[in-house]
Amino acid sequence: MLTHDHACLVVHGPDSIGIVAAVTEMLSRQDGNILALDQYASNEEGGKFFQRIVFYKPGLLATLPTLRQEIDRTLKPFGLEWSLRDMAVPKRMAILASKQDHCLLDLLWRHRRGELPVTIPMVISNHTDSAEDVRGFNIPFFHVPAKPGYDKSEAEAEILSLLKGNVDFVVLARYMQILSNDFLTELGVPVINIHHSFLPAFIGANPYKKAKERGVKLIGATSHYVTEDLDEGPIIEQDTMRVSHKDSLGELARRGADVERQVLARAVLWHSQDRVIRDGNQTIVF
Amino acid sequence: MLTHDHACLVVHGPDSIGIVAAVTEMLSRQDGNILALDQYASNEEGGKFFQRIVFYKPGLLATLPTLRQEIDRTLKPFGLEWSLRDMAVPKRMAILASKQDHCLLDLLWRHRRGELPVTIPMVISNHTDSAEDVRGFNIPFFHVPAKPGYDKSEAEAEILSLLKGNVDFVVLARYMQILSNDFLTELGVPVINIHHSFLPAFIGANPYKKAKERGVKLIGATSHYVTEDLDEGPIIEQDTMRVSHKDSLGELARRGADVERQVLARAVLWHSQDRVIRDGNQTIVF
Amino acid sequence: MLTHDHACLVVHGPDSIGIVAAVTEMLSRQDGNILALDQYASNEEGGKFFQRIVFYKPGLLATLPTLRQEIDRTLKPFGLEWSLRDMAVPKRMAILASKQDHCLLDLLWRHRRGELPVTIPMVISNHTDSAEDVRGFNIPFFHVPAKPGYDKSEAEAEILSLLKGNVDFVVLARYMQILSNDFLTELGVPVINIHHSFLPAFIGANPYKKAKERGVKLIGATSHYVTEDLDEGPIIEQDTMRVSHKDSLGELARRGADVERQVLARAVLWHSQDRVIRDGNQTIVF
Amino acid sequence: MLTHDHACLVVHGPDSIGIVAAVTEMLSRQDGNILALDQYASNEEGGKFFQRIVFYKPGLLATLPTLRQEIDRTLKPFGLEWSLRDMAVPKRMAILASKQDHCLLDLLWRHRRGELPVTIPMVISNHTDSAEDVRGFNIPFFHVPAKPGYDKSEAEAEILSLLKGNVDFVVLARYMQILSNDFLTELGVPVINIHHSFLPAFIGANPYKKAKERGVKLIGATSHYVTEDLDEGPIIEQDTMRVSHKDSLGELARRGADVERQVLARAVLWHSQDRVIRDGNQTIVF
Repeated sequence: MLTHDHACLVVHGPDSIGIVAAVTEMLSRQDGNILALDQYASNEEGGKFFQRIVFYKPGLLATLPTLRQEIDRTLKPFGLEWSLRDMAVPKRMAILASKQDHCLLDLLWRHRRGELPVTIPMVISNHTDSAEDVRGFNIPFFHVPAKPGYDKSEAEAEILSLLKGNVDFVVLARYMQILSNDFLTELGVPVINIHHSFLPAFIGANPYKKAKERGVKLIGATSHYVTEDLDEGPIIEQDTMRVSHKDSLGELARRGADVERQVLARAVLWHSQDRVIRDGNQTIVF
Repeated sequence: MLTHDHACLVVHGPDSIGIVAAVTEMLSRQDGNILALDQYASNEEGGKFFQRIVFYKPGLLATLPTLRQEIDRTLKPFGLEWSLRDMAVPKRMAILASKQDHCLLDLLWRHRRGELPVTIPMVISNHTDSAEDVRGFNIPFFHVPAKPGYDKSEAEAEILSLLKGNVDFVVLARYMQILSNDFLTELGVPVINIHHSFLPAFIGANPYKKAKERGVKLIGATSHYVTEDLDEGPIIEQDTMRVSHKDSLGELARRGADVERQVLARAVLWHSQDRVIRDGNQTIVF
Repeated sequence: MLTHDHACLVVHGPDSIGIVAAVTEMLSRQDGNILALDQYASNEEGGKFFQRIVFYKPGLLATLPTLRQEIDRTLKPFGLEWSLRDMAVPKRMAILASKQDHCLLDLLWRHRRGELPVTIPMVISNHTDSAEDVRGFNIPFFHVPAKPGYDKSEAEAEILSLLKGNVDFVVLARYMQILSNDFLTELGVPVINIHHSFLPAFIGANPYKKAKERGVKLIGATSHYVTEDLDEGPIIEQDTMRVSHKDSLGELARRGADVERQVLARAVLWHSQDRVIRDGNQTIVF
Repeated sequence: MLTHDHACLVVHGPDSIGIVAAVTEMLSRQDGNILALDQYASNEEGGKFFQRIVFYKPGLLATLPTLRQEIDRTLKPFGLEWSLRDMAVPKRMAILASKQDHCLLDLLWRHRRGELPVTIPMVISNHTDSAEDVRGFNIPFFHVPAKPGYDKSEAEAEILSLLKGNVDFVVLARYMQILSNDFLTELGVPVINIHHSFLPAFIGANPYKKAKERGVKLIGATSHYVTEDLDEGPIIEQDTMRVSHKDSLGELARRGADVERQVLARAVLWHSQDRVIRDGNQTIVF
């Protein structure tokens, strides 16, 4: 999935006439061949502009500095934000987990199968149960306990010291601890969570129990960026699965696990491919 | 879909050993051939019992009184509730509608195609827009206005006078008026609603607007029995459909209309086939 | 759905560096604001290029001739094919139908609700059953019989004389006659069909019967462009629905009808929005 | 998922009046409390009868011989086949695999999580790649090569000698060898396969390649019992997933892997719970 001489340029900001022309004309001058271009403008006039371009440029690595200069020069007049990424360079993804291992193992498998364009420098868990499995994938495992007695800020400080500078994004693979705002601010990279319900239904703890009590006919899962408001961050992906009156709470959790790992895997893949752009509390997914 | 010499027996109440045996032995003595039997017990011991049996009995009509006596004699010792229905006799279904006609017309079409084992003695609307369409299906249309100035209890009284004694259940096909508890009690037959969201997400008015604001990636619809608590009644059926950031509010409503009419049609079909048993605020759907 | 001052430009042909730049630079010079741009290249180098651009241009109608000149001048050097359409001008869609009316009525009703950016100048059927319904939607209905005794080429000639020059595309809404190659060639506009199976499974007649015999657990529907090879044309859209051993052949057909009309409606909508580009025997759907 | 004092009785054969009564009356006499009963008759009269009953009977183990006698005495007059299983006793499932490990690992991991009521006495593969993974789950791994040069009947004989008497059913988890009829006959237990297409579309080798060439908009997977006719055995479960023109062959295979493991896991679960009854070349799934 990592492709040499492919680059991904993401642009967003205030819309105006001529952005696409300016960007693509500049790429054309640099001999970049556009392979895929997705663009979205929120309004006919005066709206917001979002764009993702994948282009092919032989000898990309050597020309990255020039490209960055050109892009900056081209987009500055429009007041746009942008990022350019060499698609041969994987993002560095840390995973935080707890006892439930289905999302964690699914990501590790997919990574080993070459389905995720990331490296996984570490897995951190507040339990030791998964240590052997994780290390079996040749991935470092760190145990940072989070028992009731522990000082949460100490645990967060320990996690921060492991993550800072080493990762490009963090995945909470059914990590059952709430992260403080200070932690999120200090960390400074995107954090992706998987919630085991079709948000905004069943916010908070025990969503399957609530789903069983409400007698819903579908259960779901939601992957979203973590913000200071619990379960309220921008949604990246969701899906649902049919259930019936016959399904016990345990059966809901068992079936739900299948949806959770699928939804999380898609969100992680898309994020690692720069397909997801945050727009306030919503996302554009190209 | 209306079948001669087929009967449907629904039984529910406290579970105990021997119910299925007693019921089926009795049917066997009456030469009833069981075509489909669904049974569900909520617990190993001391739980609740639910059962739906479809059986074939040549000359059913003539033996219905005998069958009813036998069933009563069989089930009384177990303290169970039951209903027996000749499947050649359609249920009488009234539809209440407002301006939005997609659910209304979908039910009328399905009925005309022979997909719903019901008769439709009347459609009542607080708007006149659908009058010609409804009458084009040879179904009586009554207009009971519900404008802001009107006394709601008067409108409800008028609707009641139309429905009472004439219908076995009522469908709210995007009927945009809240029915009072007094009305529901007085009416005394089940009322099925379609809500344009995946309940319990986006309870109340304008669910598509709320869905757009929350940035969900799926929209849904929920059909449920109406109770005195708005949007809180037992859920019969739900489904979802994928949407994206590109979809405007109008587009969400357009796509949602497709889910709504599918979900409502399934709920109405299952109710009219006696497949839905209420269990507190949940449903058993066989 | 018809939008003033919006235009849709579709471009396809051999890929080369600079196409997007040239097109968008030209649009920018003409003060066109790009609202949505989808682009796809089949290979890194030397592949095929596909693009759909929706742009906003106040006073579009007056500048269409200039735009067409500019586009032609821009794209000629690249050897690309293109089409430009004023999105305020609906496509003209004829429907051919037979006895089964679910797809026909669904299209008519969506059209009346404003969900399809088309006009419907006529419905042609080889049965008279739907005449009243169709005319109830204020749409002309023509009866061209196709009974075994009839000469097929005569019927086709009659249909041609009705369609020629009057329509931009034709929809076969469960039209149960096979159209000859001569007819298709003479007609010269795209023809969209709905096949009641998940192609390429169950090609030919009676797919639900074949599905029942094979014991599949899902049934499906496929909408495709009609070519001279029966059921082999480029697929536009497909979907499936769950079934079980309990479902009789009639029940399969009943459920399938729901998938058919959804799939056909999506294919028709996308075609009428210029979202579908044919690529040999495949389609690009933007 | 293994439940003490629960038994599962499966009955099938020629339909006649009184079967359900006789069976349930007998269970009632033995103090068995019916927890779930599914029944299906193929016709009103003279059809085929299928039934699955789960009942609760304290002290089940001690009374199994009596129960078996009683069941036999009850069902013999009806000419029915039956099986009774103590649900605390897991079925013994062997897995045959090749290089692709996604289905294999998914089953092993579900088993470890307690999601499958089976034991796994062995995994047999014609490659050694998965040996370490399999043994990491504490499950014996046997390597039986199947290279072009090898005599196939020798490999089959070796596999047979490993399986015979040790397993209740066999799962082909993307096992890329065709098993001979002699092998299947000699083995004498059900064999479940996963085919990476929505059968009967794309029978045989390379279904994703064929799907890409045909330009389908959904890919699928099918789990079925293996018979002497390749890819023609009774279907247990199927599912589909949306794809588009953007998806390369590799991407189809990657997405398909997700459907494959879900479909196979459901088929294996249902088989191990005695929910699947073969009926000629079809299945009844309760």
